[in-house]
Amino acid sequence: MQYTKPLAKLIEYFQKLPSIGPKSAQRMALHLLKMPGGEVEKFADAMIEAKNTIKYCEICFNMSSQSPCEICSSTKRDKETICVVAETKDLMAIEKTNEYNGVYHVLQGLISPMDGIGAEEIRIKELLKRVHENDVKEVILALSPSVEGEATSMYLSRLLKPFGIKVSRIAFGLPLGSELEYADELTLIRALEGRRAM
Amino acid sequence: MQYTKPLAKLIEYFQKLPSIGPKSAQRMALHLLKMPGGEVEKFADAMIEAKNTIKYCEICFNMSSQSPCEICSSTKRDKETICVVAETKDLMAIEKTNEYNGVYHVLQGLISPMDGIGAEEIRIKELLKRVHENDVKEVILALSPSVEGEATSMYLSRLLKPFGIKVSRIAFGLPLGSELEYADELTLIRALEGRRAM
Repeated sequence: MQYTKPLAKLIEYFQKLPSIGPKSAQRMALHLLKMPGGEVEKFADAMIEAKNTIKYCEICFNMSSQSPCEICSSTKRDKETICVVAETKDLMAIEKTNEYNGVYHVLQGLISPMDGIGAEEIRIKELLKRVHENDVKEVILALSPSVEGEATSMYLSRLLKPFGIKVSRIAFGLPLGSELEYADELTLIRALEGRRAM
Repeated sequence: MQYTKPLAKLIEYFQKLPSIGPKSAQRMALHLLKMPGGEVEKFADAMIEAKNTIKYCEICFNMSSQSPCEICSSTKRDKETICVVAETKDLMAIEKTNEYNGVYHVLQGLISPMDGIGAEEIRIKELLKRVHENDVKEVILALSPSVEGEATSMYLSRLLKPFGIKVSRIAFGLPLGSELEYADELTLIRALEGRRAM
């Protein structure tokens, strides 16, 4: 079918968003057309404002409207512990637990030779510089248990050890609320390896 | 956690879209921030343009940037057959089949006493006027098999019969590719009722 032109264009843009197919894009566009005109304008303004004001923090490379970001400039955060994550969304996931009080370092990617991403392409040298120039006691690697996450973790741990600091990695195992019988083998292997004395 | 302000605002707007929860909204907002600035501006413009230019067709109440809409003003469409749908998205679903060559009437809702929507609130009198003033041979009711869809279909068929035209309703039964054993009872009852001679 032919969408009327301005609608077709809007649907096309919604489809550029992650995991949005043609059906969801159409639903969103039609929903938008039913919103009051003022709301649509504010939504559009919010997009442009966020894009124009949000930059990367010069210390940890978190996305923020200020640099250093809110976390790096907070006096309440423990600057001696750095949690290394791949992306800002991982940082957000950890912040939501309200349990971590250290600072972060966002690598902006993972080493992935298959995609042509080497150690130079991500923020590794900036991390080493931070550890070198500041009084850091522990680096926690919070990278996904994927091939790229494993490789990046191994690589980082080798580079960080010579600094004589504690380098740890988050635990992998059964997610809470899951059933052991449905866990995949790799998760079970990790859960067994990571067993702790009670 | 605290999002940086412009990001919080953007996520809030994405959450207003249908079936978008906090996680999807966050993913969309972060994705948007990684898009080139020019693209974000064009996306925002597309929203405002669509909202400002798309109106309801004065004949069939389809959403379009022109009135009468593309379908009502096409000389290739059969004006003697009107397919009645609840919403523009239903019209779009039928258009995508490329099988229907008549015109439409978008009711902009269904009769739903529970939600306080009576026959006056939707475009029923406009449909009757269309049938009365034009040479219409058939009205196809393409409303969902829900309580509201059933009620609206029954109501419309009673109002339309006196015009001496054909009033039909789309078939309900097993969807193609489905397994009979998994069909729910109501669908099976409808499938049996709607059986046709081979």
